[in-house]
Amino acid sequence: MKKQNWPLEDVRHWLEPGPVVLISSRWQDRQNIMTLGWHTILAFSPSLVGCMISAGNASFDLIRQSGECVINLPDAAIADTVAKIGNCSGDDTEKFEAFSLTAEKSEQVSAPSIAECHGNFECRLYDDAMVDRYNFFIFEVVAARVNPRPAWPQTLHYAGDGKFRTDGEVINRQKLFTKVS
Amino acid sequence: MKKQNWPLEDVRHWLEPGPVVLISSRWQDRQNIMTLGWHTILAFSPSLVGCMISAGNASFDLIRQSGECVINLPDAAIADTVAKIGNCSGDDTEKFEAFSLTAEKSEQVSAPSIAECHGNFECRLYDDAMVDRYNFFIFEVVAARVNPRPAWPQTLHYAGDGKFRTDGEVINRQKLFTKVS
Repeated sequence: MKKQNWPLEDVRHWLEPGPVVLISSRWQDRQNIMTLGWHTILAFSPSLVGCMISAGNASFDLIRQSGECVINLPDAAIADTVAKIGNCSGDDTEKFEAFSLTAEKSEQVSAPSIAECHGNFECRLYDDAMVDRYNFFIFEVVAARVNPRPAWPQTLHYAGDGKFRTDGEVINRQKLFTKVS
Repeated sequence: MKKQNWPLEDVRHWLEPGPVVLISSRWQDRQNIMTLGWHTILAFSPSLVGCMISAGNASFDLIRQSGECVINLPDAAIADTVAKIGNCSGDDTEKFEAFSLTAEKSEQVSAPSIAECHGNFECRLYDDAMVDRYNFFIFEVVAARVNPRPAWPQTLHYAGDGKFRTDGEVINRQKLFTKVS
């Protein structure tokens, strides 16, 4: 199934519901993957996403040095992999290899995309003003690709203590929406 | 059902999964409620939450002036109310009254809590360094109360276009978690 481009100004459709994501990064001869639940949409256009990436992670340096990463959206089919990636370190584990994930060439950034994820959102560092104080990176999404099916994948929402919540039904309240978003 | 205190360092349990929240605020003789999906946990202790609150909202001034708000966690039982609150303005609607919500006295802040919500997280403005550029407020949660039941309420996760996703099953992967969080 070939992923299709997704409108950059509508990345919120995938990230605003709050799923755990996998952040892939590369700098010089190193690449890594980390799990992340601490992110938020900040703007539609430019398409901005804020991510709190702790300086304790091996990914922190790769992202800070390269100024790039890919936000990959996993689904519940790889819940074990998502959990395991969050519980080992890029300092001693080559995660693509260890978890049999495919590092796919990205379009706009040198950081690899994860082929097995439902969506890939390529990011460039937009503002690092809050990195020193809060490890909070503001990224601009510069390319977005998503699997055409399923339209509503089972994503994972982390609640701490080793527990994720998956998604249930879609509640449509379009008729009550008079504003744009 | 009386709400119980929730550990401040574990507010992530409720907010990290990415639910839509209702932000209540008060300044002088005005109070308001807005819906918000653009938030992220930033730290366990102090218990920090970042919220992108657009300057176009009536709530923006109340929060900026008072330096306080309450993050209230609604569940799917009041999905219509959540949608409607996001589609009218505090400039011409007294929302507690219009939507028959109870403004409960908070413990630590003067902003009211919404009794009908599953949880109430009282916040003080912690850092406004990113407000001018991104409308991004960093709050410290200074009091937290949550209904004891249900343990896993049906929260709402907004995907744009008038559509919410509710929660499905809980996936427990504790056995794969070797790190603290």
